[in-house]
Amino acid sequence: MPIQFKTYILEDSTYKGGSKKIVMPEGVEVHKLSSNENPLGYSPKVKKALMDSLEELSLYPDNTDIRLRQALVRDFKQELNQDHFITSNSGSEIIDMISKAFLNEGDEVIVSQPCFLPYTAFTRWMGATAINVPMTENFDYNLEGILNAVNERTKLIFLASPNNPSGNYIPKEDLTAFLNKVPSHVIVVLDEVYRHFAEAADYTSALPFVKNDQNIIAINSFSKTYGLAGLRVGYCYAPLHISNYIRKICKPFLLSTMALEGAIAALEDTEFVEKTVALIRQEREFVLRGLSALQIKFWPSQGNFVMIQPTIPDTELVALLEQKGIMVRPVGNFGAPGKVRISFGTRASNEVLLNALESIVKMKTVMS
Amino acid sequence: MPIQFKTYILEDSTYKGGSKKIVMPEGVEVHKLSSNENPLGYSPKVKKALMDSLEELSLYPDNTDIRLRQALVRDFKQELNQDHFITSNSGSEIIDMISKAFLNEGDEVIVSQPCFLPYTAFTRWMGATAINVPMTENFDYNLEGILNAVNERTKLIFLASPNNPSGNYIPKEDLTAFLNKVPSHVIVVLDEVYRHFAEAADYTSALPFVKNDQNIIAINSFSKTYGLAGLRVGYCYAPLHISNYIRKICKPFLLSTMALEGAIAALEDTEFVEKTVALIRQEREFVLRGLSALQIKFWPSQGNFVMIQPTIPDTELVALLEQKGIMVRPVGNFGAPGKVRISFGTRASNEVLLNALESIVKMKTVMS
Repeated sequence: MPIQFKTYILEDSTYKGGSKKIVMPEGVEVHKLSSNENPLGYSPKVKKALMDSLEELSLYPDNTDIRLRQALVRDFKQELNQDHFITSNSGSEIIDMISKAFLNEGDEVIVSQPCFLPYTAFTRWMGATAINVPMTENFDYNLEGILNAVNERTKLIFLASPNNPSGNYIPKEDLTAFLNKVPSHVIVVLDEVYRHFAEAADYTSALPFVKNDQNIIAINSFSKTYGLAGLRVGYCYAPLHISNYIRKICKPFLLSTMALEGAIAALEDTEFVEKTVALIRQEREFVLRGLSALQIKFWPSQGNFVMIQPTIPDTELVALLEQKGIMVRPVGNFGAPGKVRISFGTRASNEVLLNALESIVKMKTVMS
Repeated sequence: MPIQFKTYILEDSTYKGGSKKIVMPEGVEVHKLSSNENPLGYSPKVKKALMDSLEELSLYPDNTDIRLRQALVRDFKQELNQDHFITSNSGSEIIDMISKAFLNEGDEVIVSQPCFLPYTAFTRWMGATAINVPMTENFDYNLEGILNAVNERTKLIFLASPNNPSGNYIPKEDLTAFLNKVPSHVIVVLDEVYRHFAEAADYTSALPFVKNDQNIIAINSFSKTYGLAGLRVGYCYAPLHISNYIRKICKPFLLSTMALEGAIAALEDTEFVEKTVALIRQEREFVLRGLSALQIKFWPSQGNFVMIQPTIPDTELVALLEQKGIMVRPVGNFGAPGKVRISFGTRASNEVLLNALESIVKMKTVMS
């Protein structure tokens, strides 16, 4: 009898390619607007905490994340307690943990493309099938369609607000009504890693629903607002009947000393968060206004990025921008073929971007 | 219908307690001999690499671990190629990945207590049952007994050489014969995180068996030899029919920038490794000789620790040593009731330890 490999893992084709480093022509300044990173970098106070943590790196970290969870309680102004939180090596690891906690072979999860790839990839590794209920043409969730797709095998529904890569959000009224209709055996996973950047009056995080003990898990990250994409830290919060269950599969010493100390320091530097949020909101307005002026089609965004519809093939636009040192992200593999996602950078980067787009638009008009 | 929690996760009772920091009486110097950490700390070259990596921490790390795997190929002197390796956030995360890759509800794994707790805990989270084939009275594996315990549901056999906490190893001849008898549907997981410290002439790592394409996975860690317990990095190597399958469930951006750069730098500083290994072997001889002189029962060790059998209750010994600032580890929960594990420290720490043990022995003799 041979080793019994799992077919759904064996057939996985997730790209495991090389390093992401892109070599630019000599002398060309690089503007990385491809990964929704923080144009301000990260807090100097976090850097100090990380430097300090280097002193003790040969010792094991705390065997639990309790101090980080206490810092999260303070960040949430005591509206939740330490048992509501689960921490992890990135927001996407939370998806992996949830998959292991709730999914069995033959189960179903619901996603709405375009969306973050791990919703389908990581759940498939547990033998689940992702059912796609695509977004509408305007890139809104088809919440009615999602409810219709629920059956007895459905375990998780993935929503994101704001959504990556489309930038849309779910108004509070809609999410409230939706959650009230979701059957009680299903858990809604709300990816809110871009929540700090939302400013719509009717935006909501998962907080009121978690406080209300509804079946919801809120995924958060230290990669965006806190600018710590390289450190790999994330967390989720959920009502206790869910969080205390997921905690049972948390490994001891899960987080490195640096992840723990860096994340705690990041939560404490609220000034840096405010500065980041203010910058992103301001630059979002600036870039969107520029895109309008250039008559480039885009969708409204509550994130630190915008999805555009170029009139030329996405690969061509990406290549033309790359020649000018600007990195952006085609999002066909998210389920938005032909579209391109652009992160908001510093004002300087955004000006370079808009100038480059303007020259491309002009060239294409002249040539067409 | 309620949420379907998995019974085997719901019933998990793994301790998720507080921080490990122990407060010592004022003025008492602490000798942490409880966690098998490196008494030399870690390489200054690693520290430099980590400091450098702080500059780019707001950017995502490489989305694969390819550069670290190439460094491992160099460390293995090209005897393996980059596809043989899988990296992870610690050696114990490898156990988690293997469990997800190979285990289904109802499967069995074989362990031999006393052993590292995650073999049973992490595999149970996938619904598998751990069958214990205890070590012999001398703390050797009962390899015959393990073979007899294999059945159709058996997926994994966990072995460790040197074993934590008992310090024993599996002679090459025995392991070779054993692997030749293990049925072809079973994978042997050889935990060799202490391998650098072994000096028995007939010690073997998994390397010859991996090169021979046998069903074996070798778990390794950066926490011991490289002194990076706080950084959380580990890896495994296995023949390609196994490694390329496990790789399919590796998450993109799994390792932090610091884990990647720190581990690469650690592999390159072979001088630090040699210094560590020389120190541990020398201090092992020193401590074991001291224990013999004090007539304290212990078992031979190929690791950076020794397991002893105190004549007083383990908790009492731990408390008495703690009063003197010495932290050691009772290993009842590993499956070795009443026994205590002591890591080898610097010569200074080891002298403090032996003096403390001597005074405890004398006091007990006088009092009994």
